[in-house]
Amino acid sequence: MLILITYDVSTQNSGGKRRLRKVAKECVNYGQRVQNSVFECILDPSQVLLLKDKLLSIIDTEVDSLRFYYLGNNYANKVEHFGAKVGYEAEGVLMV
Amino acid sequence: MLILITYDVSTQNSGGKRRLRKVAKECVNYGQRVQNSVFECILDPSQVLLLKDKLLSIIDTEVDSLRFYYLGNNYANKVEHFGAKVGYEAEGVLMV
Repeated sequence: MLILITYDVSTQNSGGKRRLRKVAKECVNYGQRVQNSVFECILDPSQVLLLKDKLLSIIDTEVDSLRFYYLGNNYANKVEHFGAKVGYEAEGVLMV
Repeated sequence: MLILITYDVSTQNSGGKRRLRKVAKECVNYGQRVQNSVFECILDPSQVLLLKDKLLSIIDTEVDSLRFYYLGNNYANKVEHFGAKVGYEAEGVLMV
């Protein structure tokens, strides 16, 4: 099923920047980065649990926000894109 | 139905910052800001078209990215939140 993962990591301090990098790095192991803080991942239920556990061990739940959206298996018509399509390398580096 | 709107607006220049403010301002007229660049909007099909038109007139499709995710009417179990819940004022200003 398609899982959309969105996050806001507070980067007020260097710890935040490190968490942001770690969250992105974990997510690229599981899916495709479609925007700076938005990933689309095709996962089975056990992978969802695993990824969720990993991300929750990284973020600071006091200040960071993480959301999962479950788009099911028939997601082809549930996503629309407009504008620039950017590619991201495996390590999460923006390719322009 | 629930529409999730996510966007990346390039803020390399002042025009980008203006577009970012305008996109956010338009989205808050239609829904709830749940993260910095993520909005959840309950819209009927005509409102979707209207909002899409407005946002496409604001963004620079050469450099900005805009995505719509259609989560249908039964969305209660399709969304999971972890970590900080921030409130945003109607004008899109972060309330901490």
